Amino acid sequence: MKQKGKPGSCTQDLVSLRRDFHRFPEPGFGEFRTAGIVADFLCRHGFRVKIADEAMNMAAVHHRDESKVAESAERAVAGGMDKGLIERMLGGGTAVVADIGPLSGPVVAFRFDMDALPIQESNDQSHLPAAQGFASTNPGLMHACGHDGHVAIGLGLAAALAGLGDSLKMTVRLIFQPAEEGTMGAAEAIVDRGSMNNVRYMMCCHLGLGLPTGAIACRSVFLATSKYAVDFFGAESHASNEPQSGKNALLAAASASLALHGIGAHSDGWLSLNVGVLRAGESQVIVPGRATIELGYWADKNEIHDYVTDRVRQIIKGSAETWGVVAEQRLIGRAPIAPQSGTLANVIKDCAVGMPGLTEARDWVESRVAEDGNVFLAEVANMGGHGAFIIIGSDIKGGHHTPSFDIDERSLALGVSLLSKVCLQLLDD
Amino acid sequence: MKQKGKPGSCTQDLVSLRRDFHRFPEPGFGEFRTAGIVADFLCRHGFRVKIADEAMNMAAVHHRDESKVAESAERAVAGGMDKGLIERMLGGGTAVVADIGPLSGPVVAFRFDMDALPIQESNDQSHLPAAQGFASTNPGLMHACGHDGHVAIGLGLAAALAGLGDSLKMTVRLIFQPAEEGTMGAAEAIVDRGSMNNVRYMMCCHLGLGLPTGAIACRSVFLATSKYAVDFFGAESHASNEPQSGKNALLAAASASLALHGIGAHSDGWLSLNVGVLRAGESQVIVPGRATIELGYWADKNEIHDYVTDRVRQIIKGSAETWGVVAEQRLIGRAPIAPQSGTLANVIKDCAVGMPGLTEARDWVESRVAEDGNVFLAEVANMGGHGAFIIIGSDIKGGHHTPSFDIDERSLALGVSLLSKVCLQLLDD
Amino acid sequence: MKQKGKPGSCTQDLVSLRRDFHRFPEPGFGEFRTAGIVADFLCRHGFRVKIADEAMNMAAVHHRDESKVAESAERAVAGGMDKGLIERMLGGGTAVVADIGPLSGPVVAFRFDMDALPIQESNDQSHLPAAQGFASTNPGLMHACGHDGHVAIGLGLAAALAGLGDSLKMTVRLIFQPAEEGTMGAAEAIVDRGSMNNVRYMMCCHLGLGLPTGAIACRSVFLATSKYAVDFFGAESHASNEPQSGKNALLAAASASLALHGIGAHSDGWLSLNVGVLRAGESQVIVPGRATIELGYWADKNEIHDYVTDRVRQIIKGSAETWGVVAEQRLIGRAPIAPQSGTLANVIKDCAVGMPGLTEARDWVESRVAEDGNVFLAEVANMGGHGAFIIIGSDIKGGHHTPSFDIDERSLALGVSLLSKVCLQLLDD
Amino acid sequence: MKQKGKPGSCTQDLVSLRRDFHRFPEPGFGEFRTAGIVADFLCRHGFRVKIADEAMNMAAVHHRDESKVAESAERAVAGGMDKGLIERMLGGGTAVVADIGPLSGPVVAFRFDMDALPIQESNDQSHLPAAQGFASTNPGLMHACGHDGHVAIGLGLAAALAGLGDSLKMTVRLIFQPAEEGTMGAAEAIVDRGSMNNVRYMMCCHLGLGLPTGAIACRSVFLATSKYAVDFFGAESHASNEPQSGKNALLAAASASLALHGIGAHSDGWLSLNVGVLRAGESQVIVPGRATIELGYWADKNEIHDYVTDRVRQIIKGSAETWGVVAEQRLIGRAPIAPQSGTLANVIKDCAVGMPGLTEARDWVESRVAEDGNVFLAEVANMGGHGAFIIIGSDIKGGHHTPSFDIDERSLALGVSLLSKVCLQLLDD
Repeated sequence: MKQKGKPGSCTQDLVSLRRDFHRFPEPGFGEFRTAGIVADFLCRHGFRVKIADEAMNMAAVHHRDESKVAESAERAVAGGMDKGLIERMLGGGTAVVADIGPLSGPVVAFRFDMDALPIQESNDQSHLPAAQGFASTNPGLMHACGHDGHVAIGLGLAAALAGLGDSLKMTVRLIFQPAEEGTMGAAEAIVDRGSMNNVRYMMCCHLGLGLPTGAIACRSVFLATSKYAVDFFGAESHASNEPQSGKNALLAAASASLALHGIGAHSDGWLSLNVGVLRAGESQVIVPGRATIELGYWADKNEIHDYVTDRVRQIIKGSAETWGVVAEQRLIGRAPIAPQSGTLANVIKDCAVGMPGLTEARDWVESRVAEDGNVFLAEVANMGGHGAFIIIGSDIKGGHHTPSFDIDERSLALGVSLLSKVCLQLLDD
Repeated sequence: MKQKGKPGSCTQDLVSLRRDFHRFPEPGFGEFRTAGIVADFLCRHGFRVKIADEAMNMAAVHHRDESKVAESAERAVAGGMDKGLIERMLGGGTAVVADIGPLSGPVVAFRFDMDALPIQESNDQSHLPAAQGFASTNPGLMHACGHDGHVAIGLGLAAALAGLGDSLKMTVRLIFQPAEEGTMGAAEAIVDRGSMNNVRYMMCCHLGLGLPTGAIACRSVFLATSKYAVDFFGAESHASNEPQSGKNALLAAASASLALHGIGAHSDGWLSLNVGVLRAGESQVIVPGRATIELGYWADKNEIHDYVTDRVRQIIKGSAETWGVVAEQRLIGRAPIAPQSGTLANVIKDCAVGMPGLTEARDWVESRVAEDGNVFLAEVANMGGHGAFIIIGSDIKGGHHTPSFDIDERSLALGVSLLSKVCLQLLDD
Repeated sequence: MKQKGKPGSCTQDLVSLRRDFHRFPEPGFGEFRTAGIVADFLCRHGFRVKIADEAMNMAAVHHRDESKVAESAERAVAGGMDKGLIERMLGGGTAVVADIGPLSGPVVAFRFDMDALPIQESNDQSHLPAAQGFASTNPGLMHACGHDGHVAIGLGLAAALAGLGDSLKMTVRLIFQPAEEGTMGAAEAIVDRGSMNNVRYMMCCHLGLGLPTGAIACRSVFLATSKYAVDFFGAESHASNEPQSGKNALLAAASASLALHGIGAHSDGWLSLNVGVLRAGESQVIVPGRATIELGYWADKNEIHDYVTDRVRQIIKGSAETWGVVAEQRLIGRAPIAPQSGTLANVIKDCAVGMPGLTEARDWVESRVAEDGNVFLAEVANMGGHGAFIIIGSDIKGGHHTPSFDIDERSLALGVSLLSKVCLQLLDD
Repeated sequence: MKQKGKPGSCTQDLVSLRRDFHRFPEPGFGEFRTAGIVADFLCRHGFRVKIADEAMNMAAVHHRDESKVAESAERAVAGGMDKGLIERMLGGGTAVVADIGPLSGPVVAFRFDMDALPIQESNDQSHLPAAQGFASTNPGLMHACGHDGHVAIGLGLAAALAGLGDSLKMTVRLIFQPAEEGTMGAAEAIVDRGSMNNVRYMMCCHLGLGLPTGAIACRSVFLATSKYAVDFFGAESHASNEPQSGKNALLAAASASLALHGIGAHSDGWLSLNVGVLRAGESQVIVPGRATIELGYWADKNEIHDYVTDRVRQIIKGSAETWGVVAEQRLIGRAPIAPQSGTLANVIKDCAVGMPGLTEARDWVESRVAEDGNVFLAEVANMGGHGAFIIIGSDIKGGHHTPSFDIDERSLALGVSLLSKVCLQLLDD
């Protein structure tokens, strides 16, 4: 990556970058090392770089796992990273937003996500990262969804653009976001700092997701989602000596869970709800005075998502009342459905067709998961701009979010080539 | 019963009376024929008789099954009963309250209940009423709890007192109450008309309840109870075409039922709750917009009863809210725990001991059911008077509330003797 | 309808027929009068007619409401219909299957449904049948889904074909089925008698369903469905006197209902489940020993339907066991998803385009309900033939299954014209 | 406690012993230091002492918290205790059973319990142990139920008996049991080693429990109890991507919890059930594949306890089946109702009356908790011997099982005096 401006020619560098990120996976909002490398790279390639509270507003974040973030910060310190920079990112977040090109006017923007997953990577010798020595060195953390590749592609795109000097007709903005998994508010917090102002074209990308190496999709449908934690506060009492004095938070949580799963179908589309966690009580002999549930739901229309949101609120309130306890509901994650631009999809398709290595350019793919990137795409659509969520096919080993997940690294160069070409095409419009 | 004033000597008359009532059982608040005979008998024996709205305030009643009452009124008309009297009782209730003795001053009162049960009497020849031709002639109705015997005893007591002319030192009041079963408010409605004013001693009695012929108990513990109907009003919708528009009253009722049964134990005593009826919905393809439950609960302390009352209200409100429906809760029956007087129990015991045929005089018996008579006993205790619920043992065939129930008619004379003796003893105090 | 063979020219006859059926709606399996008229009409027009047990196997039917059927039979007798014919249909069912053309070889078949709904028709003067005197004369029954029109179209098609004498190159079979609503097994019972043997092309049709007058759809997607009744057998006991002896069927049914509604989403498609009826218990003071639920479910894939079927069985068994009761599950209705033929759809489209009055010919419409006709379409697909469910647009007043439902009678002639043309086209293939 | 044989005269020693045990509370089955001191004391006072596997059969124990036991063993090692002895007790349990007197023949036995509670002791200066420097030095552990006093009384009794040399006419057996709290099987495991053979009189004692200093009760009614843990094994799946593949252990546990709390009243007595713990799932996005509940129940009759046991088993099996998961139920604690001897109570009462400091000797007290000592009392009754659970009144500060619990140390000498006197009286019989 020493040489600038040769999109597609730097496959080796892309692979090296990706493998480096793969070795050092970091949790959501704990991407200190990753963001540090990204910021440095972008600075060195002539971008105007914003980090921490310049790039995002942590107050707009729904949820952050403080203990994991603190652990990750210690690891970054131990790895020799600058303590002042870590401090800034601890307070202001681990986003990096960088511009190149004109200081004003319309913007073409790309989003890349940097966080890893709480998964212990396989050390089976059939797993390439293990066999070739670039498996995760951070216990219990793994890039098992390809975000390491996304960051590499983002830097490859940066390198490609850097070589174009002052010739860029529009500003190009690269957004490296933390904490995509769990949709905990990172995208909303970046939007909140104004990073979508003047954005005319907004693209996100993801590797794999069912498409083989060589194929791409111009747009992708993700689901709308919300995640909540709910605390139930009742009252403890001895279960044989004074049962009537207890206010049973466990039964409130249990009833709520059953009722939440009883939210029925919607004739306009698809929805799924899951109470994934229930924790209540400490002892067989004590009426449980405290309980917590965590739940998520998904829908293929924002209206259906909102219908579920209303029912969830009603069920939690009613269940708490039924058992004489108090419930507090906390948002810990959300992402919308985002409309995607046919105009932009056509540009992407036109750029893709005929590219070396490209085997198929689909218009759409559908996915039964949610993506924080939809926050950016919904915002750009809302402002009258164009958005698309591009899938860059990659022959995946293992499945997404499993210990033996691995991408086909040949996809990286193809990704950089496609994004560079689309970017330049849009600048020329 | 033509001759007055010979307590205990009129066994044949008591049996005839009892068998007549047994042949013509009437439902709660539909005791037209029974009350008519009682009122007439009391008038002829020199009592000052109040009926209908003079005797009770129907506005204080919780519940009345109008269709059964109307059917019973038709039957009474067909039986040749005076229509005007039936009209009065339809409007004002079927209670009869009658005094004898001084026009003012303290009162000794007795309560007898007149209603039958919605049970089809056995016509097996091993069942005495069937074998001897005095089984119920009213389909689906039966004196299966001995109230026919209670009325006979009450009239026997009246006859005994009638012979004493002006010698009575205190007023004696006989209360013939309708609708004891289901504790639907008849006793409260009689109290509401002032019939407990100046009552110093109040006694109820019941045949059987586990005591053999010859035994009596001076006092009995019944349970506090309440019964409610709850209507849930939601919204119907087609279950595949537009499920999201429904508000599911069936699930509200089902959740409420489970939560109601989850009302736990109370360390101060015993309680039981039952949702006995749930009716919801009309079709598999329609989200049920209407549901009804009926429930009862019982406790051996008024405080526990009140604790359950609070929880029931909370559960119904919360369950309705959970499912987005509206609930309306209607009281349909209740009876309290009543303290009973040791002083009065001693008088009863002293009178009982040595009576011909008496084999045992217990202080207390306990019962896991409720009794509307407790309303009178609670009221007299509240006013500083003395109350007792006397059990007159009777060898029971079948069980209470079963089609082959039958009392031992020898108990009737013993009951009249005991009550007469106690009454005279109290008048002499 | 006196003259044969002039498709589309007999609008007045079609309207008269439809209005006659509209005045005399009959319940599922109680279509005595309707089937009698249909059979007579077809005989008079030269069809080889099978009725009752020749046309269907009642043993294959899931459910029949005997009291409604008996009531309908009485009505037919009172209307002067032949008693022997009614007897045959009572025993063997109310289907009519009639052939015209060659005695062997491939068959082109059409299905028409005859049953009405348990709805009380509006007598508002804004409701055309009321205003013009052809509203339902059978209380609580109404043609509120257009089946009266379907029968009229079927007879119109019969009249059109009758004029063609011996020139028909293939057998044409008209199937008039009872009891489409509730998918109670009528179609399966007709298939069971061999009526789908040699069928190469199978068409069903429906009026309205969202399409306006003038529009048609060549194919329609309905949902797979099943309906069940479940009886829970527990044990009664007195709820305060001996609660421990009861086995609570009400709570089993309530738990089952909640768990059934907790059957979650399926990622391959859409499903909806509804427990539409729950009836349990008789008295507040008795632990309920009996309960019944009725439920239906719908899915847009047969595999999802089967997944729900498995879960339903598991939930009912487990819920019964939880409460110590016994459950019996009875199938009362079902219908599958049926693949529909693109080849046949093209023929229909080609025939439709250019027809007088036709404004639009869609390939597909989707519907969130189930249709018993799918049984025929699934069978023909299974045998390698072609099936299509045609929608004949009609401006609907009120909604389907509401008291003010009404079709636009102009659709009837268009329907006859289209089906006749398609039929002749297929015969010529 | 240096001098032997002077019952009641060694108050200071009793207080010193109690305060020493109070400073070093140990968890159930982790009473290494306590049992070591007890065994040593008894040896030095001439008892024949059995420990570890001689005293109890760990295989008969229902449950042991291995991590707390290991932690306690480390603490004992750090405190300088003999490692070999700790090893023996780790393997064989922490019971101490010691005899004095004849080597054969009938036995008079006493039970004392040694375990502390998982409670952090108050360090408020109003709390005597904190003010006087003998509060718990083991974080999160506290003698908050008086077992420290029980052990002191047991040793006081031992000292008293030791002075009597060879004059004892019957064997006296002192049983120091571990793990009374939670009734995890320690008593059963001690019985299993034959320690109740030939026992004619068996006594347990407890301080406080509502009786003031100076009062005693000869007998006490505790409840029957069982405690279970239940693991539900289902299957995980992604809640939006493949919800149908999950088998939801959380909902199984939630349903089971609601149904368990729906176990109704029993007319023969009192019962209470509590699901005190529910833990299920790890993530909002994963259908929970694992869940655990812990529950306890209590009844005032063994028959009611057994009725609940049957219902619990049924509910767990049925709930697991409902949700397609597998449940495993593990017993973690139990204790029976034990009949208590009127004969023995009379002896106790006779001994108590007139003792210095004694203010009241009640026959019975009732308690809404369970006691592992009932295992011994049930066994002795079963063998035709006599048992009694003596309460030694003590003015309690704070409540039992609270951080500010404290006994009135004056009760200790009274306890030793009473038990010594009763013991000598029984030996003389």
